[in-house]
Amino acid sequence: MAKEKPSIPKGTRDFLPIEISRRNYIFNIIENAYQLYGFKPIETPAMEHLSTLMGKYGEEGDRLIFKILNSGDYLSSVPDDLLQSKKSAKIAPKICEKALRYDLTVPFARYVVQHQHNLSFPFRRYQIQPVWRADRPQRGRYREFFQCDGDIIGSNSMINELELVNIIDDVFNKLGINVTVKINNRKILAGIVDKIGHSDKFTEFTTIIDKLEKIGVDKVNEELGQKGIEPEAVNALQPILHMDAVYTEKIEYLRTLLKESEVGMEGVNEIVEVFDMLDEVQPSCEVELDITLARGLNYYTGTIIEVKAKDLNIGSICGGGRYDDLASIFGMEDMSGVGISFGADRIYDVMKEKDLFPEKIETFTQLLIVNFGQKEQKYCLSIAKEMRKQGILCEIYPDQAKIKKQMQYADKNNIPFVLIVGEKEMSTGDLTLKSMKTGEQVTVSKSDIAGYISNNS
Amino acid sequence: MAKEKPSIPKGTRDFLPIEISRRNYIFNIIENAYQLYGFKPIETPAMEHLSTLMGKYGEEGDRLIFKILNSGDYLSSVPDDLLQSKKSAKIAPKICEKALRYDLTVPFARYVVQHQHNLSFPFRRYQIQPVWRADRPQRGRYREFFQCDGDIIGSNSMINELELVNIIDDVFNKLGINVTVKINNRKILAGIVDKIGHSDKFTEFTTIIDKLEKIGVDKVNEELGQKGIEPEAVNALQPILHMDAVYTEKIEYLRTLLKESEVGMEGVNEIVEVFDMLDEVQPSCEVELDITLARGLNYYTGTIIEVKAKDLNIGSICGGGRYDDLASIFGMEDMSGVGISFGADRIYDVMKEKDLFPEKIETFTQLLIVNFGQKEQKYCLSIAKEMRKQGILCEIYPDQAKIKKQMQYADKNNIPFVLIVGEKEMSTGDLTLKSMKTGEQVTVSKSDIAGYISNNS
Repeated sequence: MAKEKPSIPKGTRDFLPIEISRRNYIFNIIENAYQLYGFKPIETPAMEHLSTLMGKYGEEGDRLIFKILNSGDYLSSVPDDLLQSKKSAKIAPKICEKALRYDLTVPFARYVVQHQHNLSFPFRRYQIQPVWRADRPQRGRYREFFQCDGDIIGSNSMINELELVNIIDDVFNKLGINVTVKINNRKILAGIVDKIGHSDKFTEFTTIIDKLEKIGVDKVNEELGQKGIEPEAVNALQPILHMDAVYTEKIEYLRTLLKESEVGMEGVNEIVEVFDMLDEVQPSCEVELDITLARGLNYYTGTIIEVKAKDLNIGSICGGGRYDDLASIFGMEDMSGVGISFGADRIYDVMKEKDLFPEKIETFTQLLIVNFGQKEQKYCLSIAKEMRKQGILCEIYPDQAKIKKQMQYADKNNIPFVLIVGEKEMSTGDLTLKSMKTGEQVTVSKSDIAGYISNNS
Repeated sequence: MAKEKPSIPKGTRDFLPIEISRRNYIFNIIENAYQLYGFKPIETPAMEHLSTLMGKYGEEGDRLIFKILNSGDYLSSVPDDLLQSKKSAKIAPKICEKALRYDLTVPFARYVVQHQHNLSFPFRRYQIQPVWRADRPQRGRYREFFQCDGDIIGSNSMINELELVNIIDDVFNKLGINVTVKINNRKILAGIVDKIGHSDKFTEFTTIIDKLEKIGVDKVNEELGQKGIEPEAVNALQPILHMDAVYTEKIEYLRTLLKESEVGMEGVNEIVEVFDMLDEVQPSCEVELDITLARGLNYYTGTIIEVKAKDLNIGSICGGGRYDDLASIFGMEDMSGVGISFGADRIYDVMKEKDLFPEKIETFTQLLIVNFGQKEQKYCLSIAKEMRKQGILCEIYPDQAKIKKQMQYADKNNIPFVLIVGEKEMSTGDLTLKSMKTGEQVTVSKSDIAGYISNNS
């Protein structure tokens, strides 16, 4: 077979053992927090029907969904004239019935409807799985990345929003990351477009102001104009886009601005309810109302949440919101849900940049048994068996290599102890145990090894 | 949006919380065993370049690889005449550069070559991730399933084979599954085809006898004939296909049969080396030499291993073997590896069928705080916060629903304790804690709740 220079698709990653240990450290903290709040684990398949995913993430999202080619003679069902037109976008759904999941929220809504008779509501689930997006790869943005979602579905209560903020607070506290939690409510945004007479342009409006931080206020104004919002209306938005006020002032401003908008006032009241409860529990992280927060995903209908690491410009590391209508797409009414998603990969990057991982995070082998040859190897088999029985992580060096090479292997792999069993040791039963850290050698009997390692680790 | 009846692609599965807990129970036992033997965790992306996977699993395997459609205008680079030919198989590699991994062994070989400078050899890794195959779904066979692989690469020593059998023994012991480990060596099979004068038909021979158990000896003979192996040669194979002898007799037979075949004798010697060591460690499971074991995957070159659950006809639940040339495909010579793969999904099915899962396997919420209304809810927020601080898994019922409904929720979710805080309780600070199991109610103060729950769980 021809030699191939090995590589992986761009935007994807291999993980070395140390990286897995670090990622698991993050996953464990998130998982434990979810469990403390009564969330239960579920998983869904990597592939969903293409029709389950299409149309749920906006036009841009549809383009970024990875489609899976049908098996067998996939072209046979494509009409000749369509095929000859070479219209890639139109032909895709004819040759691809399946696609890789784009997030964990839409699959969760599908799951809830499909398994409703096996679940009891309000249902709290967490789900830690990779998702795939055909996005242009760049720093902190991958084509395969892990989401760690928690959702409560089947309850309208704002206490769910509070609980999610509490979880966010717990997780970042344990990880040691200093964060700001930004909260807004899409109903407030709906009230605002209402107020400027553009209820018809809600999606365009939210898509544009979602980019405020990235592109700045001038560009936002320009884009709003391009979407047909006239200068007076854009003008009326300026106090909102420039608002620099404390929470109570913002609420006061919104109560005046939106007093005639039913949906707008509903949003304000929901926000106030959440902040009142936050006042009660006093989270340790900063939580602020950000009226310009919009979130890109169209399925959000109420509260929206976004978390940023302080003093690091890396985008959001957690986000979420409430979705009233997602389950209804799959045929189940009155199933409002609210959820958050931790971006494990960006959190990883923050932890690495700020040197926040604990030092001892890998599970290292504790004992390497040196291999002197056929006879010694045979003698050591039962030692290794006994070690493992006693819970000592142990390897026998597999080859009869030079002792120096075997020691280097122990060194490179951070193995703290090496057991040396040569002809002399076999005859007397006095084995030599060497500490790789101190260089010290002690004489031990078979039955003392495990105890010595445990006492000196 | 139109209502869609929710479903998932055939051969894939959703997992309920109890199923996740059970699967994690299996994963943890496998992971701990690997760690005890010095294996380190790695992960690779779900997608590999199509060219990395194609040609590694035989013709049938190539067909079963899920291909991912290129993004954007994927048809533009397909020549018109090729497109009009509608040759699906020929067009696929032009419109798909990526594919879902089919197993964890080929990605591992690719990984080792790509990251060789960050690894120290012999390198032991474990990897627990899903793989995808476009196989016809049936009982115990899914299109998405988990493999739990362990491999040692960079060592020819037969002690690695022994260690893998030890791991298999440890894992199935802990899981409580009674298994038989079958071992053979592809070099013995090479010696046999050599002996009957058909070295040229090695792949066909192994593919056919791999099916022996499934299709029976008559059908095997018939298929061998169809592949051009003449009746005398098929005849010469009969003692092997019908062999019913103890280990020593089999070895004796092979030593006579293969004495003129260099490769054959190499295989016999390797097998003897492994069984000699097994004699030393005395695994608790049954290990047998099965000369008709062939394994379907072409990359195996030496020892092959297959594990079956006793008294259950469900196919193999673990398997593996040695591959001398896999890394060389990606440009790295002299990197022999040997590995095994636990089939977590079939193991799950066996555990379920034999009722082997421990009863208390789910992480349940320990305390539900009943929600009587706005004021009470506010009062309970700090209680919930304190509970979680003390490690009690706790939920506040999010809605002010009827008390009966809230109790039913606790019941359905197996929540053992319910805290009742009404107006009276708020005024006195004497809270009511109810055990859902016994129905007993006790009066506790805020600070006593966690202690009471821990003492009575």
